[in-house]
Amino acid sequence: MYPEIIKHISQEIDFKASEIEEFISLLSEIHLSKKELLIRPNDSVNYEYFVVSGCLKAYYLDESGERHIIQFAIEDWWISDFEAFFNKEPAKLYIEAIEDSVLLGLHCDALEELFKRIPKFERFFRIKTTNAFVSLRSRILETLQKSSAERYLNFCNKYPNIEKRVTNHHIANYLGIQPESLSRIRKELLLH
Amino acid sequence: MYPEIIKHISQEIDFKASEIEEFISLLSEIHLSKKELLIRPNDSVNYEYFVVSGCLKAYYLDESGERHIIQFAIEDWWISDFEAFFNKEPAKLYIEAIEDSVLLGLHCDALEELFKRIPKFERFFRIKTTNAFVSLRSRILETLQKSSAERYLNFCNKYPNIEKRVTNHHIANYLGIQPESLSRIRKELLLH
Repeated sequence: MYPEIIKHISQEIDFKASEIEEFISLLSEIHLSKKELLIRPNDSVNYEYFVVSGCLKAYYLDESGERHIIQFAIEDWWISDFEAFFNKEPAKLYIEAIEDSVLLGLHCDALEELFKRIPKFERFFRIKTTNAFVSLRSRILETLQKSSAERYLNFCNKYPNIEKRVTNHHIANYLGIQPESLSRIRKELLLH
Repeated sequence: MYPEIIKHISQEIDFKASEIEEFISLLSEIHLSKKELLIRPNDSVNYEYFVVSGCLKAYYLDESGERHIIQFAIEDWWISDFEAFFNKEPAKLYIEAIEDSVLLGLHCDALEELFKRIPKFERFFRIKTTNAFVSLRSRILETLQKSSAERYLNFCNKYPNIEKRVTNHHIANYLGIQPESLSRIRKELLLH
């Protein structure tokens, strides 16, 4: 049952079978169809979600109705409106399925209980959160430091095969570059 | 000894005196004069630093020599080139004292050992890292969502009394707004 998430947590920490069983018992399975919304602004956000299969985007709609993609998530990634989840504030983001997706939701209270009962999960989520924090700092630095072409290549590296699954328009929006510039970059890279 | 950091860790977790003693024994005290560099690009970064007193900035110099301030730190904050620290990569940032400062450095190996011996520190740093991650996501969203004036007010709230300690030019750079716009905003706010 749920071999993907068992593999995911076991890569970091050596859990006992009983600990894994307890963790799995806390998860709820969610099925989303393509274009279905998981979270919308002002929702209460009590869950973070592990992606078993599919692909999602988290985005913010500004006052002029322009969309800003904050995060993608594919298999083996976690997604939520993390600010709302951790600070217990209303959501500001939309989270939408780009493909039919299967997720495993973990409730904040269940997570807090789990930390108390099995401190190894504290370690697991410390490592995951540290990686997410470092990756976000890198992303901020990258926009200052690297060319659009380099950032596109890094993106392809981080999200394998994403070009086949997400429109170029989405990738350009996430990277903060013009769609026309991304088309040019892709053409130039194909020539090399 | 070091009452500031003892108060800092005890706000989150109920540590025993012996646990606090063990933690304190791992720290090294560092004194920096105003304008002294703590970290420069290509350094190995083996420490993260708790600020006992003083004020520092972490910044990136881009290819054209332009400075981008990534983080400030005052009393009770942690600072490092976190990407370099956690990923064991060479530093990309400069970290410089804005005032004479006293720091407590925590070595990555000592930290790793501490996690194994006292799992409560795993919890402490999970909470701190989660807060840092959420705060970084908020900062990205704020640049999309809030006016420059709102971002300036949030900044003053987050770093109390910072206007007295850091130049307006620094604050404008950190917030990604023009120094002239910040002067205008400050004048308007003073009128209300």
